[in-house]
Amino acid sequence: MRSSAPQADQGAHGPDLGDWKTSLEQRLAVHLSKPTAQAAAPAASQSLSRLQQAMRHGVLNGGKRARGLLVLAAATASGADPKDQGVLDVACALELVHAFSLVHDDLPCMDDDDLRRGQPTVHVAFDEPTALLVGDALQTLAFECLAERAGSAELTIELVGRLARATGGLGMAGGQAIDIAAVGQTLDQQELETMHRLKTGALISAAVEMGGCLGPRRQSDSHWMDSLGVFAQALGLAFQVVDDLLDASADTQTLGKTAGKDQAQGKPTFVSLMGLDQARTYARSLHDRALSALDHAGPEAMALRQMAQALTQRAY
Amino acid sequence: MRSSAPQADQGAHGPDLGDWKTSLEQRLAVHLSKPTAQAAAPAASQSLSRLQQAMRHGVLNGGKRARGLLVLAAATASGADPKDQGVLDVACALELVHAFSLVHDDLPCMDDDDLRRGQPTVHVAFDEPTALLVGDALQTLAFECLAERAGSAELTIELVGRLARATGGLGMAGGQAIDIAAVGQTLDQQELETMHRLKTGALISAAVEMGGCLGPRRQSDSHWMDSLGVFAQALGLAFQVVDDLLDASADTQTLGKTAGKDQAQGKPTFVSLMGLDQARTYARSLHDRALSALDHAGPEAMALRQMAQALTQRAY
Repeated sequence: MRSSAPQADQGAHGPDLGDWKTSLEQRLAVHLSKPTAQAAAPAASQSLSRLQQAMRHGVLNGGKRARGLLVLAAATASGADPKDQGVLDVACALELVHAFSLVHDDLPCMDDDDLRRGQPTVHVAFDEPTALLVGDALQTLAFECLAERAGSAELTIELVGRLARATGGLGMAGGQAIDIAAVGQTLDQQELETMHRLKTGALISAAVEMGGCLGPRRQSDSHWMDSLGVFAQALGLAFQVVDDLLDASADTQTLGKTAGKDQAQGKPTFVSLMGLDQARTYARSLHDRALSALDHAGPEAMALRQMAQALTQRAY
Repeated sequence: MRSSAPQADQGAHGPDLGDWKTSLEQRLAVHLSKPTAQAAAPAASQSLSRLQQAMRHGVLNGGKRARGLLVLAAATASGADPKDQGVLDVACALELVHAFSLVHDDLPCMDDDDLRRGQPTVHVAFDEPTALLVGDALQTLAFECLAERAGSAELTIELVGRLARATGGLGMAGGQAIDIAAVGQTLDQQELETMHRLKTGALISAAVEMGGCLGPRRQSDSHWMDSLGVFAQALGLAFQVVDDLLDASADTQTLGKTAGKDQAQGKPTFVSLMGLDQARTYARSLHDRALSALDHAGPEAMALRQMAQALTQRAY
């Protein structure tokens, strides 16, 4: 099921991703539970609490936590401890940016979606102005998480820059702009892949590469960041092809969001471009390309391999 | 006039704020002119260019640049060089956050305003989804500006944290949430001041305090940051009282945005709370309080005093 955690390998070969997911969500809850009473007079304080409640609704509502888990998996592969709070906070930052993008994507002026992760979207559960502010404040909180994380200032600044470039006008937001313009258009494969490389790929790559910065391997292995870059780019694309396959074939209840939406909205997809069978073959070849990039990464990269498996071999 | 630069004192006693404004806007234009062609296939590249054009529309459309100039004025008072690129980039970050907040504030689901700084708002000049993405991407760009600025990593991380706290759910976004809930309500002075302390005050305080971090005075003068805090808080409130006075008495052409809007929307203001005369007296007393906080700041703080003058003694 799409909204469950990637399956953990309980054997000797990999960490328990379910445990990681629990730690990540506990840490997210801490960031989303700041005291509001000191900040404001009584009536104002109620409004701040309601905003924070809506922010929690937008984040702590299930979800696979793919981006956060990719941070932890890449951090582990690079020799960092995924239980370290300075590492968890990087994972939180990625999840907060992702959640902000979903809240804004679901707004009436964008995809106008009522359902997300099986729950009413933020503008349905609260209201539209609140959902706008929730998205804005979740993006801010992502950068606040990074700024306040334990760790070297030089590395943290690099992480802020990487997250900002992946999120902004030449990253995720740019990809969304391409997506809007593409409705009802016929895109060739190169244009479709450009759109996804920015819209979803940039943040997936940022998750893997930011995680990969956190351990000592980056200094000891000169190919490390390049290998992660190839892995992340193939995985990001595979993830999107699988998303299109799921959108074309699963039902709304299984999906946890409105099924068949892309097709109904006239959005170009890998399925509309190449058909179901060829899209399935393409997803498998991208998955293989991602795994090949980790050929020399050793057993420390087991969690990264598990994530690639979980994200590209969801039921479709 | 509201959309003109604060008047520069051309005499021997203060810097030329008009020159500073020019440098700031030139630097903003650099940040808003990234090459889009490499990032994408041809059709996608057009969408990225259009998004960037809309971002420029949201930022480079006049405006007083009050927050950016406050950064430069406070930096100068603290012994930093306002022409230094690492200082200018902090000013850019404040202006980008302010511009993002205006673009989202003007959206149909918020204030639904067609006119800003005498120009059509972004969702009118472009479209609503684009305006949503413009706001999102401008916030991101603010943090990118900080991450890429020249300067010590420790200081930059502190600046990222200060900007994030001022912008987020317990800062500007929180103030906007209070504002939404306050429509049609009667607020007492304490509630009204809480709203403005967050909605506009937090960013004005961040501008002054972030600028005040940039020079050596912070280390040499143990009262420096506290004095700036008092100055900024009084100035931020004075600025809002003056805004309410202008909204109640100026016409749309002079204002460069829709006049009488707050009253028409049933929003509580200092004028509705205390009447025109008492609001004028209150603005003057806040201005005096701001200046008193700089009593021992010496001639280096001349630009900060000019800014206080320019922002609280606009025609009303």
